[in-house]
Amino acid sequence: MAALAEANTGHALAYGDDRWTHETEDHIRELFGPQASAFLVWGGTGANVMALASMLGPAQAVVCTNWSHINVDETGAPERVLGAKLIDLDCPDGKLVPAQLEEQAQAIGAVHHAQPGVVSLTQSTELGTLYSIDEIAALCDTAHRFDMSVHVDGARLANAVAALGGNRATLRAMTVDAGVDVVTFGATKNGMMYGEAVVFLHERFAKVAPYVRKQVTQLPSKMRFVSAQFNALIHDDLWLQLADHSNQMAQRLYDATLDIDGLVYDTAPVVNSVFPHLPPEVIEPLRAWCFFWDWNVPTNQVRWMTAWDTTEADVDSFAAGVRQCLAHVSG
Amino acid sequence: MAALAEANTGHALAYGDDRWTHETEDHIRELFGPQASAFLVWGGTGANVMALASMLGPAQAVVCTNWSHINVDETGAPERVLGAKLIDLDCPDGKLVPAQLEEQAQAIGAVHHAQPGVVSLTQSTELGTLYSIDEIAALCDTAHRFDMSVHVDGARLANAVAALGGNRATLRAMTVDAGVDVVTFGATKNGMMYGEAVVFLHERFAKVAPYVRKQVTQLPSKMRFVSAQFNALIHDDLWLQLADHSNQMAQRLYDATLDIDGLVYDTAPVVNSVFPHLPPEVIEPLRAWCFFWDWNVPTNQVRWMTAWDTTEADVDSFAAGVRQCLAHVSG
Amino acid sequence: MAALAEANTGHALAYGDDRWTHETEDHIRELFGPQASAFLVWGGTGANVMALASMLGPAQAVVCTNWSHINVDETGAPERVLGAKLIDLDCPDGKLVPAQLEEQAQAIGAVHHAQPGVVSLTQSTELGTLYSIDEIAALCDTAHRFDMSVHVDGARLANAVAALGGNRATLRAMTVDAGVDVVTFGATKNGMMYGEAVVFLHERFAKVAPYVRKQVTQLPSKMRFVSAQFNALIHDDLWLQLADHSNQMAQRLYDATLDIDGLVYDTAPVVNSVFPHLPPEVIEPLRAWCFFWDWNVPTNQVRWMTAWDTTEADVDSFAAGVRQCLAHVSG
Amino acid sequence: MAALAEANTGHALAYGDDRWTHETEDHIRELFGPQASAFLVWGGTGANVMALASMLGPAQAVVCTNWSHINVDETGAPERVLGAKLIDLDCPDGKLVPAQLEEQAQAIGAVHHAQPGVVSLTQSTELGTLYSIDEIAALCDTAHRFDMSVHVDGARLANAVAALGGNRATLRAMTVDAGVDVVTFGATKNGMMYGEAVVFLHERFAKVAPYVRKQVTQLPSKMRFVSAQFNALIHDDLWLQLADHSNQMAQRLYDATLDIDGLVYDTAPVVNSVFPHLPPEVIEPLRAWCFFWDWNVPTNQVRWMTAWDTTEADVDSFAAGVRQCLAHVSG
Repeated sequence: MAALAEANTGHALAYGDDRWTHETEDHIRELFGPQASAFLVWGGTGANVMALASMLGPAQAVVCTNWSHINVDETGAPERVLGAKLIDLDCPDGKLVPAQLEEQAQAIGAVHHAQPGVVSLTQSTELGTLYSIDEIAALCDTAHRFDMSVHVDGARLANAVAALGGNRATLRAMTVDAGVDVVTFGATKNGMMYGEAVVFLHERFAKVAPYVRKQVTQLPSKMRFVSAQFNALIHDDLWLQLADHSNQMAQRLYDATLDIDGLVYDTAPVVNSVFPHLPPEVIEPLRAWCFFWDWNVPTNQVRWMTAWDTTEADVDSFAAGVRQCLAHVSG
Repeated sequence: MAALAEANTGHALAYGDDRWTHETEDHIRELFGPQASAFLVWGGTGANVMALASMLGPAQAVVCTNWSHINVDETGAPERVLGAKLIDLDCPDGKLVPAQLEEQAQAIGAVHHAQPGVVSLTQSTELGTLYSIDEIAALCDTAHRFDMSVHVDGARLANAVAALGGNRATLRAMTVDAGVDVVTFGATKNGMMYGEAVVFLHERFAKVAPYVRKQVTQLPSKMRFVSAQFNALIHDDLWLQLADHSNQMAQRLYDATLDIDGLVYDTAPVVNSVFPHLPPEVIEPLRAWCFFWDWNVPTNQVRWMTAWDTTEADVDSFAAGVRQCLAHVSG
Repeated sequence: MAALAEANTGHALAYGDDRWTHETEDHIRELFGPQASAFLVWGGTGANVMALASMLGPAQAVVCTNWSHINVDETGAPERVLGAKLIDLDCPDGKLVPAQLEEQAQAIGAVHHAQPGVVSLTQSTELGTLYSIDEIAALCDTAHRFDMSVHVDGARLANAVAALGGNRATLRAMTVDAGVDVVTFGATKNGMMYGEAVVFLHERFAKVAPYVRKQVTQLPSKMRFVSAQFNALIHDDLWLQLADHSNQMAQRLYDATLDIDGLVYDTAPVVNSVFPHLPPEVIEPLRAWCFFWDWNVPTNQVRWMTAWDTTEADVDSFAAGVRQCLAHVSG
Repeated sequence: MAALAEANTGHALAYGDDRWTHETEDHIRELFGPQASAFLVWGGTGANVMALASMLGPAQAVVCTNWSHINVDETGAPERVLGAKLIDLDCPDGKLVPAQLEEQAQAIGAVHHAQPGVVSLTQSTELGTLYSIDEIAALCDTAHRFDMSVHVDGARLANAVAALGGNRATLRAMTVDAGVDVVTFGATKNGMMYGEAVVFLHERFAKVAPYVRKQVTQLPSKMRFVSAQFNALIHDDLWLQLADHSNQMAQRLYDATLDIDGLVYDTAPVVNSVFPHLPPEVIEPLRAWCFFWDWNVPTNQVRWMTAWDTTEADVDSFAAGVRQCLAHVSG
């Protein structure tokens, strides 16, 4: 907010030719290396679509998981705006493996099949799991061997960095060093009012990006209000502190609810979400009290997410409410 | 050929305003009822795309099987031309069931998901299986209950009709009476040089069809050469005779090879394809002799198709070749 | 800013199910009538694309002027996202007339031509001109007679309302009473950091709008930050005051520069822009001092725009600078 | 027809892996040089769309004339399938000039404008005019200077070749030597039942063409029936004879009607069309007798086209009918 108020004084040129945006571009080069270029956009779906639109060639398809946000949570925006097929592969833990890329690569050269051109993976994944840095590097190696490029949907990339090392070197290792081509670097889920960055890690796809951004309706006119927020987030690594905090709050929620009768976890959290199974009769009352999404209806599994602004008191109060609600049922 | 030669004499107006095309339109109404309208197009992929483009509304998706031709064999043409998502469901036998539509219907009203708008099923299926007439009617009922409409990819519809009754009443029962909205009525796989018909079974989607056909590049200029072939095919029910013949040739091939050592069938043919498993070392030699497609590489399963012009001698000769080749291997 | 700070406290549900957005929806109904529904989006290009995507049917085209923002300033976003032709008509003053719609309507029913389905007009226009309320009503009448619907690109609609009456009744007369179907109601050019509203004036096209908004990447997740700004703008009619102010500043700039030797105006301003012709040699020095866009390079015409936050001192200082610069040249 | 009958005997592999298609590919290399590659497609609109889909990059637009077939006679197929803007320039004689390309090139680098990427010109034009070989070369030079590539819509390219030299060297000079990148080489208007060729004159865009052809629904399955017709047309230069014949018939029609009272020509024909102005009251009676299209309704101008199969008797009979009809009116 303070960052916005500062950017709100005086006149500035529109569409990114302002000092705040130039500063953001500098920050991005510090984070991802001198070849990196940043394109600020409105939102997460737009960021993914803009990245993929810059990467895809004619008749190419995007390889992704069946759980991927681009596949299930974007109302078909990729298909509409890209005019491209998403090849969604079964991935029970939300993670692609190199052998799946090799299998898809068999379609290369066959005129009856869309040509796999881009691999899109999500870090951390939609299932709250993580790729290790080595796993990302292995996927990039395989993809590049078949002339596919690699996109990372990083709506929650900060949480992954916080979980896998917690500093800028972790980010660099996970992206540019691993061979990733383009990253959507999420910020809205990490405290910003709005705005995401599409980061091109080398020049190949960046050349068309300025035009593609506008063409897919993702060019903010008063861009300084996006970049001012980004500057506040990246400067002094607030982005890492917030992500680490939200991860810790998920761990706290897990710890505070693990022993509740009738509540079952399959796994401990690695980032900022937990996925408990609940007695079916408590789901609606709990949700009426504090909204959350279903995850797997047949197994009564729900998703609870923590955020950059979740407090310890929030967690404790929520956990107490859950405990009380389930006690009432068991009793 | 004779039909073409006859249409090749004299001048005629282009784009379908000719006596051959008017005759085809009459034939289609005889087959499918007085509400039906026929739009002749170039090819099978174009027929499917043109049908779906006439049916889809904004933000709608197509529900289909993971085996469907539109999903795997059209190089992403539907996604590109329609700008719509295909929701491809796992269907081990190539057939959708009503419960799958009900599950997809849960996305209706949720803004983050493409809205299921059209169900596309293939009859006979890409796996050589058949929907019964009751199964199609049940799918249509379920689809319509959720305001979805139903498209049938009928590239091999004639083979299905031949297998399930063998006359025009069978066709009518399987389509318009079952509640189907739009059919692509295949002809290229049933003897024509080129040309397919998209048949709208009632007026709802037909209104935009003339413009959509041209817009998706599927309006034949000298349309009389398509319609002359259709007239020859429909008049005197040659289409049924040819389809029945190709079905019989598949049965003959099955019978002639069933006892061969090392060749295993999972099922008997119901239309014009058989899917034997072969010893892996004979597949390439056999294919070099007479080309066919792999079906399931890990299980050494291939697909042999018979056609309208396959002769008994063709079948017997091919079966003898297979027998000899496998004997050589076993020996 | 104050509105944003207020919305920044506490948690709220995402994607518009919050009290700020409900209040905005109420405000929009007050402005446009009880049938109206508002869909908040990120930006101006996105607003236009989202509106048109909800309105267009298969094989339909958009009729617009050759000067329209959708035609020349959106990098082909409409063609890409809509997959539809823009039929851009020569309109020297940036305004369509009914006879042009009648001429385009001749293509209706002809399969070789995209079918005119939506008329898009801009109020106030890209040339700083205005449609009278009667002119808009006449265009709507003609459009509806041919089953076309009418979209108004209202990025600067507030300036038009301020110029043509200055109160809510003017807005109502200019839109819903005139027969307009869908309006993009601009706010970013009227003081907001970001955010526009697409207003559907009746139910016909609104049904698909929630899904289309997400599909064209224009659904803000933390929507309350958009709606809080809108509420501040609409409550107490700040939107009208700001627009009226920017119009007055254009008039002040015109008055302050009209007598400068070497500077020629074709017309007086009606909204918030003036279009002077300048001696060619002063254009670059002036622009280096204070950026503005060329308008018509061959005639040395440029565009100066005033805004909601332009002060009288800004105008006077700028006018003085222009006077000095031209004096230097003439001298 | 004879060519088709020959191709109709025996079995052949589908999708172009047959001896007829290989022969066509050889013929195309003879005509256009060893770097050329031919992709056979269904029809003219599809040919243009397939060519452009192979050439366009992200956010690029097509520069063409306001008269171009892609702009006015293809129902928006380019916009729909390409998702790209057509920038249609006013060209009273149907011909682009280099200065127009230079003006469009000013948009290069400006993010708010679709980037001119492909120039599409038509030879012979939709207005029955011709580009000289030097004019095409000059357009190609200008286009390439700005990194634009050049497409020729050659639906009537044969008529242009017949008019400008009449042999294969003329074709070569007009296309590959002039710098053209991709040609749609028309055949349906030159005697074939169906089928066109998209010819890539060098490798740059050809790599994606096989996949793009299928993706835009333009891959003929039984391709040998297209290629057999092409072989008959190219072998012994029948294509040139037919085109020259149709050009001569237009000249004959012009000569036979030039002196008729009340009929006025602006120009003599250069290819196979004449554009007379007629007394308005005779247009409908004449059209009822023998169909033709209006050209310019306000000036009572119509278009009469001759074809490969128009006979001298056809021309003489038609001219006599016109003379009689107009005499009746004048009398």
